[in-house]
Amino acid sequence: MSETTLRRNALSIFRAALAASDPVQAVLRHLRLDRDVLIAAGRRYRLKSYRRILVVGAGKASAAMALAVEHLLGRRVQSGCINVKYGHIAKLRRIGLNECGHPVPDPAGVEGAARIADMVKSAGEGDLVICLISGGASALLPLPAPPVTLEEKQETTRLLLACGANIHEINAVRKHISLLKGGQLARLAQPATVLSLLLSDVIGDDLDVIGSGPTAPDESTFGTALSVLRKYGIERDVPAAVRNRIEEGLRGAVPDTPKPGDSTFQRVQNVVVGSNMLAVEAAQRRARELGFRPLVLSTFVEGETREIARMHAAILKEMSATGRPVKPPACLITGGETTVTLRGDGLGGRNQEFVLAAALDLAGLRDVVVLSGGTDGTDGPTDAAGAIADGHTIARANELGLDAARFLSENNSYHFFEPLGDLVKTGPTNTNVMDIRLALAGVPKKQKKRGVL
Amino acid sequence: MSETTLRRNALSIFRAALAASDPVQAVLRHLRLDRDVLIAAGRRYRLKSYRRILVVGAGKASAAMALAVEHLLGRRVQSGCINVKYGHIAKLRRIGLNECGHPVPDPAGVEGAARIADMVKSAGEGDLVICLISGGASALLPLPAPPVTLEEKQETTRLLLACGANIHEINAVRKHISLLKGGQLARLAQPATVLSLLLSDVIGDDLDVIGSGPTAPDESTFGTALSVLRKYGIERDVPAAVRNRIEEGLRGAVPDTPKPGDSTFQRVQNVVVGSNMLAVEAAQRRARELGFRPLVLSTFVEGETREIARMHAAILKEMSATGRPVKPPACLITGGETTVTLRGDGLGGRNQEFVLAAALDLAGLRDVVVLSGGTDGTDGPTDAAGAIADGHTIARANELGLDAARFLSENNSYHFFEPLGDLVKTGPTNTNVMDIRLALAGVPKKQKKRGVL
Repeated sequence: MSETTLRRNALSIFRAALAASDPVQAVLRHLRLDRDVLIAAGRRYRLKSYRRILVVGAGKASAAMALAVEHLLGRRVQSGCINVKYGHIAKLRRIGLNECGHPVPDPAGVEGAARIADMVKSAGEGDLVICLISGGASALLPLPAPPVTLEEKQETTRLLLACGANIHEINAVRKHISLLKGGQLARLAQPATVLSLLLSDVIGDDLDVIGSGPTAPDESTFGTALSVLRKYGIERDVPAAVRNRIEEGLRGAVPDTPKPGDSTFQRVQNVVVGSNMLAVEAAQRRARELGFRPLVLSTFVEGETREIARMHAAILKEMSATGRPVKPPACLITGGETTVTLRGDGLGGRNQEFVLAAALDLAGLRDVVVLSGGTDGTDGPTDAAGAIADGHTIARANELGLDAARFLSENNSYHFFEPLGDLVKTGPTNTNVMDIRLALAGVPKKQKKRGVL
Repeated sequence: MSETTLRRNALSIFRAALAASDPVQAVLRHLRLDRDVLIAAGRRYRLKSYRRILVVGAGKASAAMALAVEHLLGRRVQSGCINVKYGHIAKLRRIGLNECGHPVPDPAGVEGAARIADMVKSAGEGDLVICLISGGASALLPLPAPPVTLEEKQETTRLLLACGANIHEINAVRKHISLLKGGQLARLAQPATVLSLLLSDVIGDDLDVIGSGPTAPDESTFGTALSVLRKYGIERDVPAAVRNRIEEGLRGAVPDTPKPGDSTFQRVQNVVVGSNMLAVEAAQRRARELGFRPLVLSTFVEGETREIARMHAAILKEMSATGRPVKPPACLITGGETTVTLRGDGLGGRNQEFVLAAALDLAGLRDVVVLSGGTDGTDGPTDAAGAIADGHTIARANELGLDAARFLSENNSYHFFEPLGDLVKTGPTNTNVMDIRLALAGVPKKQKKRGVL
């Protein structure tokens, strides 16, 4: 069965995407040590010329990123402090880890953030600050601008979410009641040199969005923050301290976040070491190696999972029928992250639901396989990363008495794929660059020749 | 503004797709008269060798198709009879039109179908029967197998729809209680030669699905029909005449529909003269002429309109950001037909709603344009075929006080685009090959040079 080969290929391509997202590998792939010179994305850092190397950061994958930095720089690292989620630790020698709350920030987070702020403030012209940012960094690096308290900041976020503000609007407000977000960590570190390594978990990889951009220029102002509160009519509902902070900012009593072109960033380099796009590109390379024509459609995919699946299925049908948009053997690749509107009370995740919905549309089609997986290895509240299916999946399910449409309507994709043996399990990967979706059609000739079939 | 050029280009590409779908043009593009020889898709018909040329058929666009046939063959046409929807007529000289009910068949339809059956039955070995099938033909060519009545057939369809049977299952039953569907018109015409010209309004252009396939082989059997009734537990609910007809068929008392390979089809040629795919390919050619890299993603698009729009927007974003899957200037093209789940009581259609949802995701993006239009020229219950938008649309709407998200949530896309002047109006086209969606990015250099900007 050619589907067996296609399934093996799909899994291999997915694994390549996962490997590119591994925090340790991601850092090591973007940093190179040439004797005494650290090279990051073309920029050279002569290590001996720095008095101290300090490592700071926050995020669920940042302990692993720190491990890679210690592996590379060893005793050249002076010290460091990183805020991580409880349990998301690694064995480090010189960089301190501070476990704290996520997704809800807690006092431990504030304490760690204050220590990080002190450390970068202590950095002088001769110091190199390496900053490690990964998913969750925004919640894990909470340093409200006094007298705003953590509770008042959280209350503000809740109000913004409740009134339907989008993530850019919420961030504009939060950056202006915080002391590290929106490029302020980079400003605190001046006049030291800052090398920021980022593992992006957001669509588009905008530097000011990843972890709320502690080392990136911020376009939003105190004026933006105020206009967001006004737009949703919550200017009078937010805590007084929040209102006062914004008013102080508008009066110029406290400095705004550093803007693009600000001198802060003359000594700052931001390098995205891992992202959905880099994972997608790794998948693309592996697909090409295996003999497929890869076609990356988008890393910006959002929307209701089951409908996005139908669009993928529609393109796969066209590919099978007419060789458009790319002639088989071919591999469509998409990234990003979809959502699921819960209708039933089954068990599943967006990746498994994607594959289930696609399988329904592809029933009976030959030589096609779809796979969708979360790079974090845990799709929804399940122990699977995603699932895999082909044109025979629905028929196989029918033989087992499984009604695919019903499982889909109950958001019960896990219990659909489990008895079929079609769950994709990787275990938790301790990273997250969103999802990878693959749609394969046609077995490459070189694999046919090799007799893999 | 480059968007002005892109909009003009998008409209030009859409018009090319419409031209390919025009019933008269579609027939004339696929039939050629070389002196006395009629050539259709490579097959040659020496007209003088036929005693008579008879023209039959059914469908909303079939009067226009007949006009093209009369234009080409003139007095060589002996006579004809075509069932059309009330008002869907044309000025014909030799082919009779019979106006009847659609989408609900009526006695006029049955009378016309009986006349058509008599005409093709009268055809002998020396006759050429030209059959013209277009959208709506299934309802417009109702000839229930006696003693089944039209009412009993309709009751059966209602039962099948109510229990959730899919279109293939419904057709399997209907073909076996009818006398013309499922290749039976072609069989009645034997031993005459049959040339069937089809304007397809279904996804995939399967010959046995277009107008229920009166001249195409049918894979389904009386056994299939029975298993469908059993699957949904309505075997005892359908009218007794329907049950009897199927039982007679199973006993071999009445012949099954002709299967693939049946001798019936030795003298039958089916030519799809118009379809969503042909329209998409016309759009592709026009896009290329204008200097875009065209990329046909799929003609199989189905699903919830606003989510399908998000997927298109995601691909357009990727194209703008990274030049994938195809480098601008580029034009993504998709076909098929989406659905809208009504939530509000606004005015709109699936094409206008598609463009509204896409515009929301594309707000702020430069050099991009999206257009979606129904080839029938009437999108939903509106006088527009669709709409057009670019990255400035949402900002322009805001200036007019139009909240795009609210219009979308109320299915009120018509009233959103009307004040913006962004409705695409063509008037009714009297054809239907589903929808065309275009997503353009980047202005072709040759147009920049020409100073069109």
